[in-house]
Amino acid sequence: MELHSRTDAYIGRYAARAAGMVPSEIRALFAVADRPEVVSLAGGMPYVSALPLDRIGEMIGELVARNGAQVLQYASAQGDPVLREQICEVMELEGIRANPDDVVVTVGAQQALDLVTKIFVDPGDVVLAEAPSYVGALGTFAAYQAEVVHVPLDDGGLIPAALRETLERLRRDGRRVKFLYTVPTFQNPAGVTLTAPRRAQILEICAEYDVLVLEDNPYGLLGFDGEPMRALRAYDSERVIYLGSFSKTIASGLRVGWALAPHSVRAKLVLAAESAVLCHANLSQLAVREYLATQPWREQIKDFRVMYRERRDAMLDALETLMPKGCTWTRPSGGFFVWLTVPEGLDTKAMAPRAIAERVAYVPGTGFYSNGDGRRHMRLSYCYPEPHRIREGVRRLAGVVEEEIRLRDTFGGVRRDDRAPGGVDTPGPGLV
Amino acid sequence: MELHSRTDAYIGRYAARAAGMVPSEIRALFAVADRPEVVSLAGGMPYVSALPLDRIGEMIGELVARNGAQVLQYASAQGDPVLREQICEVMELEGIRANPDDVVVTVGAQQALDLVTKIFVDPGDVVLAEAPSYVGALGTFAAYQAEVVHVPLDDGGLIPAALRETLERLRRDGRRVKFLYTVPTFQNPAGVTLTAPRRAQILEICAEYDVLVLEDNPYGLLGFDGEPMRALRAYDSERVIYLGSFSKTIASGLRVGWALAPHSVRAKLVLAAESAVLCHANLSQLAVREYLATQPWREQIKDFRVMYRERRDAMLDALETLMPKGCTWTRPSGGFFVWLTVPEGLDTKAMAPRAIAERVAYVPGTGFYSNGDGRRHMRLSYCYPEPHRIREGVRRLAGVVEEEIRLRDTFGGVRRDDRAPGGVDTPGPGLV
Repeated sequence: MELHSRTDAYIGRYAARAAGMVPSEIRALFAVADRPEVVSLAGGMPYVSALPLDRIGEMIGELVARNGAQVLQYASAQGDPVLREQICEVMELEGIRANPDDVVVTVGAQQALDLVTKIFVDPGDVVLAEAPSYVGALGTFAAYQAEVVHVPLDDGGLIPAALRETLERLRRDGRRVKFLYTVPTFQNPAGVTLTAPRRAQILEICAEYDVLVLEDNPYGLLGFDGEPMRALRAYDSERVIYLGSFSKTIASGLRVGWALAPHSVRAKLVLAAESAVLCHANLSQLAVREYLATQPWREQIKDFRVMYRERRDAMLDALETLMPKGCTWTRPSGGFFVWLTVPEGLDTKAMAPRAIAERVAYVPGTGFYSNGDGRRHMRLSYCYPEPHRIREGVRRLAGVVEEEIRLRDTFGGVRRDDRAPGGVDTPGPGLV
Repeated sequence: MELHSRTDAYIGRYAARAAGMVPSEIRALFAVADRPEVVSLAGGMPYVSALPLDRIGEMIGELVARNGAQVLQYASAQGDPVLREQICEVMELEGIRANPDDVVVTVGAQQALDLVTKIFVDPGDVVLAEAPSYVGALGTFAAYQAEVVHVPLDDGGLIPAALRETLERLRRDGRRVKFLYTVPTFQNPAGVTLTAPRRAQILEICAEYDVLVLEDNPYGLLGFDGEPMRALRAYDSERVIYLGSFSKTIASGLRVGWALAPHSVRAKLVLAAESAVLCHANLSQLAVREYLATQPWREQIKDFRVMYRERRDAMLDALETLMPKGCTWTRPSGGFFVWLTVPEGLDTKAMAPRAIAERVAYVPGTGFYSNGDGRRHMRLSYCYPEPHRIREGVRRLAGVVEEEIRLRDTFGGVRRDDRAPGGVDTPGPGLV
C-alpha cells in the first residue's frame, strides 16, 4: 500500500471502533461561530472570570514554590489522598456517604465516563440514556461501540414507566443492558431535574432488571432554589457509580473530576486510568486541594448560583417576551441549559447556519441523540454570556425562528439535510 | 444477581477487555518499598527538585492572575496552538520538520499511546514491541486486547534481522500487524539506543512489510554525549507516528505530552482525545507554554543531562566494583535506566521481596514482557536517588544477588514462583 497516495491512506488500518470517529458538520460551523460579534448560546463554558483570579494565582504560585517537588512530580493513578477526602466532604452536600478509598480522581468527569465505559462495555452492548442526553457521553459510548437506547424524559426528568417499558422490550429481545446513564439534576441538555419520588422509582426498576446506574452530576450544587437534592448514589451505594466534577464549581481548565464506585469497580477503574494516562496532573489536583483547603469555596458556589440564576432569568424572560408562538422550552431550576422546541416543520440543524449569519449560535438538538432525532430541538445555554447579551441573543434567535416559520408557511416545509446521521455531532470541548 | 454477596459482585458485568486489568503482586511490593530507608532503583521519576521551583511558582502564579480566564477554562481538544508551535521547535532538535496542525497535545505521552492504540487496534491484532519493552505500553496494548509479539534487541537497539524474521513468520501465519512500537533512544527499560544505520534499516523493513511505526521518545534530549540523534520520524513522516513528552525535560507532574501524526491520523486522534477527556488541562498546557517562552529551558536540559550523567556514572562504577561475577548490564549513553542480567538459575521476581527486606528496590524484568519472560533481568534506574544513595543501593543489591547465588549453589536452584503471568506487571505511575 502506498501511504502517500490517498486522502486518508490509513483508512484500511484503523480499528473498527474508529469508524464512528468522524467530525460532524456542526464542528465546522462552530469554528465560525467563535467570533465576538456572535452571541453564543451554544457553549457550556462556566464563567470562570467570576473567580478571584489574583488570589488563585497567588495560591497556585505559592503552592508550586513551596511544594514543587510534589506538585511537579507523578501522582498516584487513583489521585491525591487528601483531595479524595475533600471530595467525600463535597459529596456529603448531596447526601452521599463515601470512603475516600472508593474515589478515583480523573481528567474531568469525561475521563471517568470513558473509563467506566471502557471497563463495562463490549461492542454491541446496550447503554440506556435519556432522550436527549449529554453529547460528550454519546461520543464516548460510540467510541466503545455501544448501542445507545434512549428513554424519554419530561419536566420531571426520566420517565419511570418509559424506562420499565424499554427494559422489558430489551429483555424480550435478549439484549444485554450494561448500565443506565443519567444526568438526574439540571440535566444537560434539557435543564430538567429528576423528582425525588422518581429517584426511588428509577432505582427500584434498575434493581428489578439488574441494571447498573451511571449518575453524572456536574451541576448538582448549582441549584437556584433551596438545598441540593439527594443524589441517586445517596440511595444506593452498590448499584450506582457516581461521577462528579469541579469544572463548574471551581474551574473547567483544571480538568479535575472523579468517579465514586463500589470497591471492586474502583480497583478496575484505577488500572484503566493508569493505562490511559498514568496519572492526572498533580498541578491540577493539588491546586484543587489547596483551593478547597484555603479558599471560601462554599461562598464562591453561592456567588456562582446567584450569577447563573440571574442569567437564567434573563433567558426565560427574553424567551417569554420574544419567541414566536408554537415554541416551547424548559424552565431549569439550576445548571446551565434551556431546551427549546420549535414548531412542527422547522429543522434546527438546517437552520443553524442562518442563525450564525444572524450572529447567534446554539447547539442543534441532533447532537444529543444517537439516532438522528432532535431536529425540532435546540440547546440554549445561559452560563457564559452576560444578561444583556443573552437578551440580544434570544432577540436574534427569535427573528431567525420567525423567518423559518414564514418560509415554512410559504413553501410548505423547510429544506432538510436528509443525510443519515454519521456518528455523533460532537461540537467540541467548550460546547459540551 | 445479588450485588452485595460476592468478592467482586460485578465480575460477570465487565467488558472482555477488563479481564486483563488485574493488579500484579509487584504493585503490593512497591507499596512497601516506598519508605525512606529503602533505596529505590525502581522508580522512573525525574528529579524535579533540580528545577528552580521559586521561579516556576512565580511564573505560574502570574500566568493565572494575568490570564486566568483562559488558564482556568476549557481548551481545544487538540491542544493550545502556540504550544503546538513550540513543540515543533523542540522536535527540530531531533531533525523533525513538522506542522503544528499535525500535533495533538495529550495527558503525557501515555495518553498518546492509549489513543493511537484505541484508533488502530482491534482485539487480536498484533503489535510488535522490543524485548524488553516499556511496561506502560504493554499495559495499554493489553487493555485493547492486542497480542504483543516481542522482537529482541541488543546493545545497538532493535535487531533488524530479528524484525524481518518476525514479520515474515507473522505474514506466513496470516496475522495482521498494526504497528511496531519502539523506544529507539535510551530505551526504557534496556537503556540501549538504536544505531543510525539500523534506523534506516528498520524503516526499510517496515515499509517492505507495510507496518506503521510508533516511535516513543521521552528521553531523546537527555543524551550524555554529543548532539541528539535523528528521530525515526525525521526519516519518514508518513509511516512514523511520533510520541513526545515534557515529563522528563520539564516536569512529569504537568502531564504534557504529544503525538505527531500524519494529518488524517491526527484528525482521528483529536476526536478520540475529545471522547476520552474533552481536553487537557489548560493550566498544564499554558504553564509549559509560558515556561518554554520565558525560561532558559535549553540550559535546564543541559543541567539535567549533567546531573543524570553523574548518576549514571555512579551506578556503572558501583556495578563494576560490587556486582558478583556472572552479572552483566547495559551501559546507557542517556536516559534513566540500566538493564541488569543475573546468572542462570536466579529469578529476579522471586528475589524482589528479599531485596526489599535488604532495603533496595528494583523492577523485576517480567514487567517488561507480555509473555512471562524476563526472570533473569531487572531494571535499575539512576534518575532519582543521589549518587551516594545509588552506590549504597547497588551495594545492597550486590549482597542480595551474592546470597541468591550461594543459595543456588547449595540447593541447586532458587525456588521459583511458577504461576503463569497474569496480565501485565504494571508497577504504578512513579515506577514506569
